[in-house]
Amino acid sequence: MSSPKQSGTLPTGFRASGVSARIKKSGKKDFALFYSLSPCVASAMFTTNAVAAAPVVLGKRIIKAGKPVRAIAVNSGNANCMTGQKGIEDAARTAGLLARALQISRNEVLISSTGIIGRLLPMEKIEAAVPYLVEALSKDGLKDAAEAILTTDTFAKVATRTCKVGSKTVRITGVTKGAGMIAPDMIACPAGRHATMLAYIFTDACIGRSALCAATTEAVGQTFNAITIDGCMSTNDTVVVLANACAGNRAIAKGSRDFAAFAAALKAVCLELAQLIVRDAEGATKFISISVRGAASEAAAKDLAMSVANSNLFKCAMFGSDPNWGRIAAALGSAAEHLDWQKMDIILNGQPVFRQGKPVVLKKKDLLKGKLIDVVVDLKSGKAGMSVYTSDLSYEYVRINAEYN
Amino acid sequence: MSSPKQSGTLPTGFRASGVSARIKKSGKKDFALFYSLSPCVASAMFTTNAVAAAPVVLGKRIIKAGKPVRAIAVNSGNANCMTGQKGIEDAARTAGLLARALQISRNEVLISSTGIIGRLLPMEKIEAAVPYLVEALSKDGLKDAAEAILTTDTFAKVATRTCKVGSKTVRITGVTKGAGMIAPDMIACPAGRHATMLAYIFTDACIGRSALCAATTEAVGQTFNAITIDGCMSTNDTVVVLANACAGNRAIAKGSRDFAAFAAALKAVCLELAQLIVRDAEGATKFISISVRGAASEAAAKDLAMSVANSNLFKCAMFGSDPNWGRIAAALGSAAEHLDWQKMDIILNGQPVFRQGKPVVLKKKDLLKGKLIDVVVDLKSGKAGMSVYTSDLSYEYVRINAEYN
Repeated sequence: MSSPKQSGTLPTGFRASGVSARIKKSGKKDFALFYSLSPCVASAMFTTNAVAAAPVVLGKRIIKAGKPVRAIAVNSGNANCMTGQKGIEDAARTAGLLARALQISRNEVLISSTGIIGRLLPMEKIEAAVPYLVEALSKDGLKDAAEAILTTDTFAKVATRTCKVGSKTVRITGVTKGAGMIAPDMIACPAGRHATMLAYIFTDACIGRSALCAATTEAVGQTFNAITIDGCMSTNDTVVVLANACAGNRAIAKGSRDFAAFAAALKAVCLELAQLIVRDAEGATKFISISVRGAASEAAAKDLAMSVANSNLFKCAMFGSDPNWGRIAAALGSAAEHLDWQKMDIILNGQPVFRQGKPVVLKKKDLLKGKLIDVVVDLKSGKAGMSVYTSDLSYEYVRINAEYN
Repeated sequence: MSSPKQSGTLPTGFRASGVSARIKKSGKKDFALFYSLSPCVASAMFTTNAVAAAPVVLGKRIIKAGKPVRAIAVNSGNANCMTGQKGIEDAARTAGLLARALQISRNEVLISSTGIIGRLLPMEKIEAAVPYLVEALSKDGLKDAAEAILTTDTFAKVATRTCKVGSKTVRITGVTKGAGMIAPDMIACPAGRHATMLAYIFTDACIGRSALCAATTEAVGQTFNAITIDGCMSTNDTVVVLANACAGNRAIAKGSRDFAAFAAALKAVCLELAQLIVRDAEGATKFISISVRGAASEAAAKDLAMSVANSNLFKCAMFGSDPNWGRIAAALGSAAEHLDWQKMDIILNGQPVFRQGKPVVLKKKDLLKGKLIDVVVDLKSGKAGMSVYTSDLSYEYVRINAEYN
């Protein structure tokens, strides 16, 4: 799908850079650095995959310690996963090299990796690139950094929002990458499964750790954790939010109006980034939102919506613009203990196709011809609902993943 | 994949037929009948999909009643699912029409359907075809019947075995169909979710209901319920086993040596049929077996093996003959609470690719070029194991399911 217009400014006190360390054969940028001039409160969520990559293991340790964070370094082209003790040592050494160059502690540096599983990081290339990466840090480095974290993505993904806290304006800016192995189910650290989506969000807000964690968990649940491209959870999924207090606002307290405004802005950034991942899904020709309404609980609604979103038959039908709602029904039924399908409605792009136990005869042949598909399932069995986002399954998805090396 | 040689003889006392009722636009055979000259003990397992098709609802009632069964009628081209009360009435009427023509009770007739969801059965076509279907019943009708139950399958699937019970030879012969929406998770009736695989197995053995149910449940668990093509569970999955006692053997008692021999033969028929479904999977170019060994329990081994079998990334890599074992590891990790991956082995076609925490450098570039792929994961954490069977994900799978109507 086409690349939407990207914009984004780093919040006050943040710098970023992205260079080529020649990890990728293509020679494209593959090493990114995000840095804050002052110490940051950090919150993070990691993959729940039992095969967690080395940087995820290290990152959890740092986040659990609860101490300030100053930098995040990300390499693409290599996941540093299934690399054993050597992988852990390599991630720690990368953090150490950056800490020395930035004159900060190695415990203030988070490391992320994305790419192929089972290969050792090319440490000589990383070591050689560190000085260039640090030297390139700038207020305007966001675009380079956003490019350097990409793998099979076709465009860089940036989103930004501002909100007022008292008389001060607080900015929240994030970058993300996705494309394949995308079915995140991240949980807050301390607590963790696996897909490679990475997101780094920076804010100049003054906010405590507990409030930042609460806002992050709430935002991620309905955004990054509500997308799926291929149902394959990665070993490396990571979301990090850093807050450096440079906006000079009064501290944002949990439960306050300030918190509500900040949480809403953070969620808006996460939703825009999560939807950008789906738009840029491997081989995608459609952006599909699936909303289940009238459910007994949000969790039940999410399970049903995700079952449709991960149905290969449904995804192929969408690729073919075929309103084959029987596949939606079958996917719903496969995820439910009980489903009162005789009273349920299925609505495609505003057109009911199944209503109260009966199929509706369709007149519009081109109902699903466009790039946007909106599926609504109303169970009429409760008041809860949830929306999830996915892409279609195309020839191009198969090509990319049959030829990936 | 190419069609293997098919053979199969109906056991003593069974007749079969298959005709075109013009339900399929193609004009191919789409209406099958299986009939026993004498009453049969029946065992059956049905989909656990909460959206069960009308014939599944009716079939459960008949099986629960525990009375003898004489006939099974199957139409392809229409699933009679999400068709409400009218669908139930249509299935019952089909049973009634056949019962009258066969001069048996309607409660002795099981009905199955497979095809598109959400369309009413064309009852006038079915009614018109019933006399031809009954007239065509013969000892040699198995091939026609096996063809008439197919949808996107490319070849008919038949398997047969014999075993000795005392001085008598007992025959077990089955037919099946699959191709897409294949991820069965059937449970014994009385007890039931959804994929369209159908299997009908006939034996001339003399065996009681409880023993037949026990043998069926055991056989299905490691055969039909151990295959997945696309992870999409159907609304119509059905396995029925009919035993008509025409072999004149002493009754097979549960726990006896006779039972063990019969159960082994039944399982062999089910395994051959289940593997034929995978060989004929929509778009398949590879037959893949995935065995997880050294697990704490069979259930745990199956969950892990199925997670690999249903990973689109793994399936695309297999289509590309790419030994990308990282995707196997990621799929294992996504299904496990905890995985001691550092001591696990991954073996592809006999070649270890990951051993005791470390990747093995591969020399053979054409390791996965053939049509058969054997994946073994040894967890070294217990004594249980399980094998599951799947196909790759190809351009052709996408084409078939984007253009299906």
